Amino acid sequence: MNRKMIRYILGRMLGAEAGLLLISALVGAAYQEESTVYFLITAAVLVLIFLLTGRKKPEETTLYAKDGLVIVSCAWILWSLFGALPFFLSGSIPNYLDAVFETVSGFTTTGSSILRDVEALPQCMLFWRSFTHWVGGMGVLVFVMVLTTLDKKNSMHLMRAEVPGPEKDKLLPKSRSTAQLLYGMYFVLTMVEVILLLLGGMNLFDSLIHAFGTAGTGGFSNYADSVAHFDSAYIEWVITIFMALFGVNFNLYFFLLLGDAKTLYKNEELRTYFGIIAAAILMITVNISHMEESVGTALRHAAFQVSTIITTTGYATTDFNLWPEFSKCILMTLMVIGACASSTGGGIKVSRLLILLKSISRTIKEMLHPKSVNVVRVNGKKLSDSTIMNVYVYIVAYVVLVIVSVLIVSLDNFDFSTTFSSVIATVNNIGPGFGAVGPTGNFADFSPLSKIVFCLDMLAGRLEIFPFMMLFSFVWRKKF
Amino acid sequence: MNRKMIRYILGRMLGAEAGLLLISALVGAAYQEESTVYFLITAAVLVLIFLLTGRKKPEETTLYAKDGLVIVSCAWILWSLFGALPFFLSGSIPNYLDAVFETVSGFTTTGSSILRDVEALPQCMLFWRSFTHWVGGMGVLVFVMVLTTLDKKNSMHLMRAEVPGPEKDKLLPKSRSTAQLLYGMYFVLTMVEVILLLLGGMNLFDSLIHAFGTAGTGGFSNYADSVAHFDSAYIEWVITIFMALFGVNFNLYFFLLLGDAKTLYKNEELRTYFGIIAAAILMITVNISHMEESVGTALRHAAFQVSTIITTTGYATTDFNLWPEFSKCILMTLMVIGACASSTGGGIKVSRLLILLKSISRTIKEMLHPKSVNVVRVNGKKLSDSTIMNVYVYIVAYVVLVIVSVLIVSLDNFDFSTTFSSVIATVNNIGPGFGAVGPTGNFADFSPLSKIVFCLDMLAGRLEIFPFMMLFSFVWRKKF
Repeated sequence: MNRKMIRYILGRMLGAEAGLLLISALVGAAYQEESTVYFLITAAVLVLIFLLTGRKKPEETTLYAKDGLVIVSCAWILWSLFGALPFFLSGSIPNYLDAVFETVSGFTTTGSSILRDVEALPQCMLFWRSFTHWVGGMGVLVFVMVLTTLDKKNSMHLMRAEVPGPEKDKLLPKSRSTAQLLYGMYFVLTMVEVILLLLGGMNLFDSLIHAFGTAGTGGFSNYADSVAHFDSAYIEWVITIFMALFGVNFNLYFFLLLGDAKTLYKNEELRTYFGIIAAAILMITVNISHMEESVGTALRHAAFQVSTIITTTGYATTDFNLWPEFSKCILMTLMVIGACASSTGGGIKVSRLLILLKSISRTIKEMLHPKSVNVVRVNGKKLSDSTIMNVYVYIVAYVVLVIVSVLIVSLDNFDFSTTFSSVIATVNNIGPGFGAVGPTGNFADFSPLSKIVFCLDMLAGRLEIFPFMMLFSFVWRKKF
Repeated sequence: MNRKMIRYILGRMLGAEAGLLLISALVGAAYQEESTVYFLITAAVLVLIFLLTGRKKPEETTLYAKDGLVIVSCAWILWSLFGALPFFLSGSIPNYLDAVFETVSGFTTTGSSILRDVEALPQCMLFWRSFTHWVGGMGVLVFVMVLTTLDKKNSMHLMRAEVPGPEKDKLLPKSRSTAQLLYGMYFVLTMVEVILLLLGGMNLFDSLIHAFGTAGTGGFSNYADSVAHFDSAYIEWVITIFMALFGVNFNLYFFLLLGDAKTLYKNEELRTYFGIIAAAILMITVNISHMEESVGTALRHAAFQVSTIITTTGYATTDFNLWPEFSKCILMTLMVIGACASSTGGGIKVSRLLILLKSISRTIKEMLHPKSVNVVRVNGKKLSDSTIMNVYVYIVAYVVLVIVSVLIVSLDNFDFSTTFSSVIATVNNIGPGFGAVGPTGNFADFSPLSKIVFCLDMLAGRLEIFPFMMLFSFVWRKKF
C-alpha cells in the first residue's frame, strides 16, 4: 500500500472541501448571518491539514486497486466528519453524531434527516446542507478530479470505486477531461431546472436548494413539508420530470449531445427504467384515485412519489404512509430497485435487475435443455460469467447488510415497518421510509447506535458496499 | 418429453395416496366417526384413476431431467387437490380453496392454517391433516419410491427435483434401498418421540399428531393453543429437542448409525446450525427475561420458539407477537435461514448461507489481491463455480418470488408486518408469521387471490422454486 500517496490525495481532498465551505460562507455573508464564521473556522482547519499533507507530491505515485478503495472510503468518511463541524459548532445541530448523520445523509444523497424543525436553521446552513447533495451526487472524487490532476491510471482506480453500476462503462469518467464533460452536463441540467423553478414563482434560494436536491437525487428541502410547501402543480411536475431525468445513466446524455438518439432508444436499461416508472404510476393512480379529489390529482401525486422513490431522491408532496398497503409495497419495491447505473441515484440499479432476471431465465432454459448454451445479453452486449457473478455477490452482500442492520436497529423497539423501511431508506440513499420515518417524520428518535448504523449504511449504499467492507476487513486485521 | 411415462408415474402416485387415505379411514372407524366415508369415496376415485393410467408400464421408460421436474411439480399439486377432498366433502372445511390451502400447507410441512376453530374437526380429519406433514416431510416421491420400483437412472431425476439443498449428496436417496433406509431412520426417530411424549402424560392420539408435526417440521396441532395446551415444561423440551433434531441433515444420522461421530463433529453445516440456534436462544432469553417469571421460563420459551422457527415447524407455546422487536427480528431472520440441507425443514438452508458468506469473503480477498486464487470450501469439499452460481440464482429467484408475492398479497391491505411475514412464512414453509398471522391468528381472512398465491408459494418453497418455475414456463409457452 502506498501510504504516502494516500495521505497526499486525502490532504488535497480536504483542501477542496475547504473551497466548498467558503462558498457556503459567501451565502452566509450575503444574508449577514452570524453562523458564517463557523464555515471560515472549519475551512481554516482544512487548509491547515492540506498544507501539512497535500502540498508535496510523493516520489512514488503508483496506486494499486486496494489503495483506490481505501482512498475512496476514507475520503467520504473524512468529508462527512469535517463537513459536520459547521452544523455542530454553530449549535444548529447541538449533537455531533446528529450533525455527522445529517452530513453523511447529504453527501451520500440520502436525504434522511434528524432535524425536527428544519426551518429554524440559518440560510447558510440550509445552503450547505443541500450543497452537499449536489457535490455528493456526482461523487466527491469526481468533483475533486475536475479541479485537480492525477495520472490516468491512478484516477481509474479511484473512479472505479466511486461510480455506481455493475459495469464500469468505457466512456466516463476515467480522465479529467471526461469528468469535466460530465460535470458540465450536470451543471447545465441543474441550471435548466433552476430557471424552470424560477419561472414557477420560486425565489432564487429555494430554486437552488431544490435543484441541488433533485440533481443529486438527495431530497433535502428547506421546508418542513418539503415540495408540498409550494402548493403548485407546475412546480411538482417540473421536479417530477427532473428527478426522473437525473436517474438516467449520464453516459446517455453524452450520446444525446452527439445527436445519437438511436442509442438512447435502443438502451435496454433506459426502456426498462421508464417502463417500471409508467407501470408503477398507473397502478398507484388506480389504487389511490378514490382517496384523491380527482384522477388528475391522483396521477400527479402518484407520479411525484414514484419518481422521488425510484430515483431515491426523497422529496414529498403527500404522506404516502396513509396510502393503501398495495401502493406502499410498490414504493418499497421501487426503493430497492433504484435508478439507472452511472446516474446520481441509489438502490440496486435497473441494469443489475435486468442482469439478474435474464440470468434466472437462462438457468431455467438450461434446466430444460442441459446441453444448450445460453448467453446473457444486456444492451446487446454479451455479459461474462464473472460480471454476472459480481452482480449476484453484490445483491447477497446487500441482503446480508440489510438483515444485520435491521437486527441492530430493532433494539430500539420501533414497529417492524419503521425498522425495516428505515434501513432500506438509508442503504438505498432514499431518505424517508414508512411509519415513524415516513415523509412527515424524521430519524431524531433513534438511539446513537442506530444512527451510527444508518451512517455506515448510507456510506455503504453510496459506495456500493465493497470499498467499505474492505476498509473494515483492513481495520479488523489491523493491517491499516 | 415422455408423456406416457409421466402419466404412468402420476397414476401410480395417486394410487399410493389412496393407501394413505385408507389409513385415515381406519382412524375414523376406530372413533366411529361419520366423516370416515369421505376418505373411502376419495380413495375409490383415486384407485379408479390408478387403474386407468398407472397399471400398464409404457414400453419406453426413459425419463429426462425436465420430465422429472414436471412429474415432481404435478405430483405435489395433484396430491394436494385430491387430498383436500375429504375436508371439503365432509364439510369440515366448507370452501374447497380453503381445503386445498390446508392440504398444501400439510404436504409442504408449512403448518399455516385457515381454520378458525381447529378443535371442532373430527379426529379422523385431524389425523389426516397431521399425517400429510409426516408424509410430505420426506417428500411424496421418496415415500412412493419406498413402496414401488423405478429404474435407478429415472429415480435420480425425480429425487434431484424433490430433495432440498444446494448439492445433492452422494448418499441419499438415489435408489429404493437408500430411500428405505432413510425412511427407516425417519420412522424410528418419530416413534422415539411418540414414546417420550407418552411418558410425559400425552395420550396416543395427541402424541402421534405432535410427533408427525415435529418429524415433518410441519406444525399442525389439534389444539387451538398448540403445544401450550399441555402446559408441561417436559413436553415443551422434548418437542424443542426433536424439532432441532429433525432439522439436521439426515445423511448425518446415517454416519451416526455407522458409529462415525467424527464426521458429524467435522460437519460445518451442523456446527453452524447449532451455533445459530445457541446464539439466537441466548440473545432472545436476555431480551425477554424481564417479561417472564424467571430466567428459566424465558430460556424455555426462547429455546422452543427458536427451534420451531429455524426448523420451520411452527408450533407455538407463547405469542411471540408480544415480544420486543429485536426478538421478533431474530425470529424473522431464522425464518429465512431455515434448517440444514436434506432435512425435512424449509427455508434457504444453512449450507447455502455458508456458501454465500464464504463466497462474499472470497470476493473481498480477490479485490485486495486481484491475482490470488481463492477456493470456497464447505465441509472440506471444494465447491465449483457453477455450484456457487446455482446458489446465487436460487437466492435471487427466492427474493423475486417474495417481492412479487408481497405485492399481490398487499392488495388485501393488511399491515406491512402481516403482509410481509405471511409471505415469508409460506415460502419458507414455517406456518405462523407476525401480526394477524401470528401464533394466535390464522390465514382465514385473506382473499381467494392471496390464498392461491400462498398455495403456490408453499409449493415453490418446498420444491425449491425451480421445478415450479419450469412448469409455469411450460404452461406459458403452451408446450405442455
